[in-house]
Amino acid sequence: MAKIIVFYEQPKDKEGFEKYYFDVHIPLGRKIPHIKSESIQRVIQTQNSNLNFYLITELEFESLDTLNQALSSPEAKAAEADGIHLFKYLNNPPIITIIE
Amino acid sequence: MAKIIVFYEQPKDKEGFEKYYFDVHIPLGRKIPHIKSESIQRVIQTQNSNLNFYLITELEFESLDTLNQALSSPEAKAAEADGIHLFKYLNNPPIITIIE
Repeated sequence: MAKIIVFYEQPKDKEGFEKYYFDVHIPLGRKIPHIKSESIQRVIQTQNSNLNFYLITELEFESLDTLNQALSSPEAKAAEADGIHLFKYLNNPPIITIIE
Repeated sequence: MAKIIVFYEQPKDKEGFEKYYFDVHIPLGRKIPHIKSESIQRVIQTQNSNLNFYLITELEFESLDTLNQALSSPEAKAAEADGIHLFKYLNNPPIITIIE
């Protein structure tokens, strides 16, 4: 099992972020092949960090191989390029972690 | 669905950390009630952060209610108290996030 985890900090424009994220970015992300499951979850609290986490999205894949295949797909490139549009609502780009 | 996510950065004593974590801390953590599923995963890469993530552990619960019940249990208090022993292998305490 392998995952991509995307951590968004508190947006500077929450309403703008929510609208673009759920109406445009997520539908594009869902086109990425090989996704086994996804979760988009609100952060209730964070300890031992000054990062003000807001939303955490996880995409799960069968293996690191299928995750890497997914990341090379045109659909992933399109979602990645679209992600730039979210930056205007944010103070920092999201932290993106790949785990296995 | 609700989760506790624990992020460990690269330990200063990797061998000591691994041994204590898997031999002592994880078995204690598994005694916490209401855990629906768990995952302990290695970090392959991290983007947009100077945090050097190493290991990410997730505990999943049916709801935020059962998560909070779990956190109030004596088993969770014991695991939390034990977590202090890991600090000598680490540069920073782990970031702990609760999501719903």
